[in-house]
Amino acid sequence: METNGDFWIHPDAIVETDSIGAGTRIHAFCHVMAGTVVGERCNLGEHVFVETGAVIGDRVTVKNGVQVWEGVRLEANAFVGPNVVFLNDRYPRSPRSPAAGDRYATKDWLQETLVQEGGTIGGNATILPGLQIGRYALVAAGAVVTKSVPAHGVVMGAPAREVGYVCTCGRRLGAAKERQYACTACGRTLLDEAGVLREASPPAGEKA
Amino acid sequence: METNGDFWIHPDAIVETDSIGAGTRIHAFCHVMAGTVVGERCNLGEHVFVETGAVIGDRVTVKNGVQVWEGVRLEANAFVGPNVVFLNDRYPRSPRSPAAGDRYATKDWLQETLVQEGGTIGGNATILPGLQIGRYALVAAGAVVTKSVPAHGVVMGAPAREVGYVCTCGRRLGAAKERQYACTACGRTLLDEAGVLREASPPAGEKA
Amino acid sequence: METNGDFWIHPDAIVETDSIGAGTRIHAFCHVMAGTVVGERCNLGEHVFVETGAVIGDRVTVKNGVQVWEGVRLEANAFVGPNVVFLNDRYPRSPRSPAAGDRYATKDWLQETLVQEGGTIGGNATILPGLQIGRYALVAAGAVVTKSVPAHGVVMGAPAREVGYVCTCGRRLGAAKERQYACTACGRTLLDEAGVLREASPPAGEKA
Repeated sequence: METNGDFWIHPDAIVETDSIGAGTRIHAFCHVMAGTVVGERCNLGEHVFVETGAVIGDRVTVKNGVQVWEGVRLEANAFVGPNVVFLNDRYPRSPRSPAAGDRYATKDWLQETLVQEGGTIGGNATILPGLQIGRYALVAAGAVVTKSVPAHGVVMGAPAREVGYVCTCGRRLGAAKERQYACTACGRTLLDEAGVLREASPPAGEKA
Repeated sequence: METNGDFWIHPDAIVETDSIGAGTRIHAFCHVMAGTVVGERCNLGEHVFVETGAVIGDRVTVKNGVQVWEGVRLEANAFVGPNVVFLNDRYPRSPRSPAAGDRYATKDWLQETLVQEGGTIGGNATILPGLQIGRYALVAAGAVVTKSVPAHGVVMGAPAREVGYVCTCGRRLGAAKERQYACTACGRTLLDEAGVLREASPPAGEKA
Repeated sequence: METNGDFWIHPDAIVETDSIGAGTRIHAFCHVMAGTVVGERCNLGEHVFVETGAVIGDRVTVKNGVQVWEGVRLEANAFVGPNVVFLNDRYPRSPRSPAAGDRYATKDWLQETLVQEGGTIGGNATILPGLQIGRYALVAAGAVVTKSVPAHGVVMGAPAREVGYVCTCGRRLGAAKERQYACTACGRTLLDEAGVLREASPPAGEKA
């Protein structure tokens, strides 16, 4: 096992970027290309691919078998489950096909994906190009996401539909009272401001 | 190719357990961690990951791109298709996120999965945490399984629904007559005992 | 990086066939077995597996995490998105299970898949065994394909349903006028001949 004291890279991983944060772990059969940024205390599972241009924030977990393509940005505390698929091209063709013409001569085909702080994507979900997964939202395992997901929203199915809200701590929220959601697991209160949830009262003593 | 006469491990696989049964084959870019048990005559396809705590019985096939996490047990004769996703955490968050608090300080988050003898999971299916796949059941390719599957049951879709029964040999069973299913492919008879199928008459000469 | 001037193979890939066309690129942690054919100017992403008996035509793109099994043929210009799953056995059981009997003693279990010229499969789709994906058809990301797809057809969902048509260039086609579809993106005209689309007028100057 290789380590420089700051981060840990399995000897069967390929890491070509200089921008790996302290405390990050990169497991076997990963490839992290040059021109990527990986934050502190991240965990990249085996068989993960991070393409030039991708950006990964602090304390992000990417489980095995995920590709983080150019155009994908994972903000701090995001979680990406095993074999999740991101996409960045809405009209894919093999780029060397004559039919594709010169569509791949520039990067105009590229559509970006943003997983906001704490956004969580269950295993084997598929995220269509050009979408945002909101802060601390939850995409259920196996979902096919065709629309952006609001902060704290829970979506499931194929195509994915909104079915409720989830607390910052990860537990489902019950019904609102006067536009407030109280989490029975952690005690947080979330406020519904025109359909967008945000925390009213983080528990005392919590540090980012 | 490395072999000790008892099992075969591709030189580009990483095997850290001592508990590999005779006749088992482990292919390239696999990682089998210390503290796992893999039975006899198994076949682990490429890019398979077996995490500490996972248990795999005899004659199991795990196709490429599958992760067998801690908490997953695959009994004898099970089949797991390519890129199938198991999960063991019902409320995932990045463990180093402050929002996750101390939820990952213990293993209370861990939910186990059991694939019983001969249980068969089609390619790219997703198995939610805490479920059982019954004896010789069949999960169709691409299904998202949110409930346990009874013995010999067939489930498909997202979320997966029961659509019929399958014989031990793998073929779909037709309608029952007086609570008995006769397999036209192999001649077995299966009895429906309060919704749970079991074999009445394995063909003569079959050995486990 | 290894190259013979004709093609490029990452040093962490395993390539055992002699039939790799000029200009093809094979990325890290791939395994291309002996007895496969890979055409010219292909691109095989990381963690791709090509099994003995598979055939890949010219200018094909296979993204990361895909297995191209025996019995799968990808014609020229095909595109296979990340973590797409092909299957070649309609009644899978672990082959060494006594219950499987002698079903795996011959290759009678094998069902073939054909992706015709330019056929495009979105990421994380699942293709059941024994099907054809027609010329320049499009399987949407995450779809579970249980029936063959006609030329230029678009299918999505689980199970996948036909929802329209796509031009050779990759863009969706609007409504037909007198059985002709005009692509507003590239100017091609496609003719509907008894439900099968074919190009009437490829743009001048395009070369295969």
